[in-house]
Amino acid sequence: MPEAIPSVPKPEKQTTRLEAFSDGVFAIAITLLALELKVPHIDGPEPTAAALASALAREWPSYLAFLTSFFTVLVMWVHHHTIFRVVYRTDAKMLFINGLLLMLVTVVPFPTAVVAEYWRTPAAPTAVTLYCGVFVEIGVAFYLVLLSALRPPMLDPETSPASIARLRKSYRLGPPAYLIATAVAPFSPVLAMGICTALWILWAVTTREC
Amino acid sequence: MPEAIPSVPKPEKQTTRLEAFSDGVFAIAITLLALELKVPHIDGPEPTAAALASALAREWPSYLAFLTSFFTVLVMWVHHHTIFRVVYRTDAKMLFINGLLLMLVTVVPFPTAVVAEYWRTPAAPTAVTLYCGVFVEIGVAFYLVLLSALRPPMLDPETSPASIARLRKSYRLGPPAYLIATAVAPFSPVLAMGICTALWILWAVTTREC
Amino acid sequence: MPEAIPSVPKPEKQTTRLEAFSDGVFAIAITLLALELKVPHIDGPEPTAAALASALAREWPSYLAFLTSFFTVLVMWVHHHTIFRVVYRTDAKMLFINGLLLMLVTVVPFPTAVVAEYWRTPAAPTAVTLYCGVFVEIGVAFYLVLLSALRPPMLDPETSPASIARLRKSYRLGPPAYLIATAVAPFSPVLAMGICTALWILWAVTTREC
Amino acid sequence: MPEAIPSVPKPEKQTTRLEAFSDGVFAIAITLLALELKVPHIDGPEPTAAALASALAREWPSYLAFLTSFFTVLVMWVHHHTIFRVVYRTDAKMLFINGLLLMLVTVVPFPTAVVAEYWRTPAAPTAVTLYCGVFVEIGVAFYLVLLSALRPPMLDPETSPASIARLRKSYRLGPPAYLIATAVAPFSPVLAMGICTALWILWAVTTREC
Repeated sequence: MPEAIPSVPKPEKQTTRLEAFSDGVFAIAITLLALELKVPHIDGPEPTAAALASALAREWPSYLAFLTSFFTVLVMWVHHHTIFRVVYRTDAKMLFINGLLLMLVTVVPFPTAVVAEYWRTPAAPTAVTLYCGVFVEIGVAFYLVLLSALRPPMLDPETSPASIARLRKSYRLGPPAYLIATAVAPFSPVLAMGICTALWILWAVTTREC
Repeated sequence: MPEAIPSVPKPEKQTTRLEAFSDGVFAIAITLLALELKVPHIDGPEPTAAALASALAREWPSYLAFLTSFFTVLVMWVHHHTIFRVVYRTDAKMLFINGLLLMLVTVVPFPTAVVAEYWRTPAAPTAVTLYCGVFVEIGVAFYLVLLSALRPPMLDPETSPASIARLRKSYRLGPPAYLIATAVAPFSPVLAMGICTALWILWAVTTREC
Repeated sequence: MPEAIPSVPKPEKQTTRLEAFSDGVFAIAITLLALELKVPHIDGPEPTAAALASALAREWPSYLAFLTSFFTVLVMWVHHHTIFRVVYRTDAKMLFINGLLLMLVTVVPFPTAVVAEYWRTPAAPTAVTLYCGVFVEIGVAFYLVLLSALRPPMLDPETSPASIARLRKSYRLGPPAYLIATAVAPFSPVLAMGICTALWILWAVTTREC
Repeated sequence: MPEAIPSVPKPEKQTTRLEAFSDGVFAIAITLLALELKVPHIDGPEPTAAALASALAREWPSYLAFLTSFFTVLVMWVHHHTIFRVVYRTDAKMLFINGLLLMLVTVVPFPTAVVAEYWRTPAAPTAVTLYCGVFVEIGVAFYLVLLSALRPPMLDPETSPASIARLRKSYRLGPPAYLIATAVAPFSPVLAMGICTALWILWAVTTREC
């Protein structure tokens, strides 16, 4: 008697516009990162091919900072995607916590540019501390988004509690890892940036589904 | 006899592209705000870690102006979202009034940068007057969008007159509140910016649905 | 015998991604216009409130150029929208002609900034000629998009030939009108900008559906 | 007995958000190209109309570089579109390889600006080598996206092996062609840019479907 089993209709996904807006902000912030790649200006009357080549080569901290920030934001976008695949409802609280995360994502080009500018100066520890500090805040905001979104009333009822638990657990690493990088930065900016790089590679490699 | 009740088919939502375009403009404008966070330039041959730290700290008016503008635009996006949830049809008039609102939203980074630049100078009253004045215009444009969108022919027929009345009422606060901030700005820029901050917090907290 | 009338199934709309991409470019180009509103820099040690007020007031050509370009691009977006409502299929030719239009739309902030910078100088005729010249090209590109899109194989079969003819006719004004503005610009930049302003107001007012 | 043929339900397209994000990045990167068109600054007290005209005319390398980059990115967007029309599933690997492609697309305004700045200097060979080198990387990334996306488990089951083979083959030209341009650039920047221009025109003309 199949009629006896009341078929609960799947709720309509209300998060479409939230996801579209978030995608927009992620896409714009990730693209604006490249605006920090500046055309080198060469002093003197006639720049030679060799002078431009070495001026471009000297900008490597910009390229590295750009690369790290790009893939970190990309990983965040992928994970934002993963979380909202199972979320079906939104409320004002979720919108504003998500807004806090988006605000911090739009800020990323700023510490990236500071690191690129001051990497080869004695001010590098301050620049990298700022960089890692912003990602601590992002890690915390991500975790708050997770807490506000992965509650039973917001979820697709078909989501298993086990997969929710797994999702929650997988985001516990971010804040403490970036906190360690921030604590390390004043003493070794190189090690701190190494931790940031290792983190996005780790998250990229361990992303199982999307 | 349920057949006797003619079922009025729900009209197809025509506002999809208007909403997508508006979301795009909101997302871009909110992300461009962060472009005003400038890498501080330190005079002298070798910037020290301490010099960069204090240069970054001195930029706090930029951070504060950024924060206020970001969340104010976010609140506007949430409310734009709330209004268009019940709107099913568009006409040219609505498109252009919505365009006026979007124009003012794209302008927000400009007064934000003016406030950030002149906050600690004797020119602060002018900067903050401009800032609040732009939000008066935005408040008026929002109200015009509301008037053009929340008319029976444009609405989802299932929307109750009570919820429309509630929506209309909730947007009456904006223009006079920002007008007061604008009037206060020449005498006390701090109080005026405080009103602007209080307003987005109030709207964020009182947003009930989305 | 209704079965005797073969019901032609409505073709699936293939233009979704073309429209989304175009909307994205329109939304970004229209938002980037505001980047040309620059924070005025005031010489001297302590800028006064009055000095900032008059510096902001002196920037009126920027505001006017911004306003004209914003609403002209908005009108173009609305009309792009109107055209693609009846287009159901795309081909490579249409994509590239549409790409040409989008390229010119992304260029708009450039002549806008040139006009804002040189409006109050003897170079204004050149600046305004450039501005109007870009809109001649946009008008031609728009007309080419129309020709490539409003052909029977690309259209929603339910579109009446009369409405197609009406659409085609309504876009014939643009190129010659901007051509006249361009021809007038070297002699009277004010009259030329007046024609540009009159055109977007005319198109905004006469837009009947969307 | 049609009932005997088990109808395999068409899988749900999972790539919607990947495509939307990619479209967003393509749209933003292509629009940011125009930011490199700079208002010329004219020395002296009162710029004349003729001085502005010749200053604008002197910027032709910017216009040409902008044009080439715009249409090359447009062609890439069209082809990205073509590939993902037959892709129905995503996995983490595809997301990150697509992310690599998007990163390189956002970088395009940088070598474009370098070429525009140094085209008429002895440093042009270096600038054009950088430009072509970025497109070698893009060509390789495109091919990797193709390899990760055009595998049977990711595809719409209705796609014919022949059309897949055709798609794969059509993207084999890019990397070697740009490699030749890169090798030529140190000796003849003009020839190298000619190859880049010829390539996008070739791809635009030979795009058969979309």
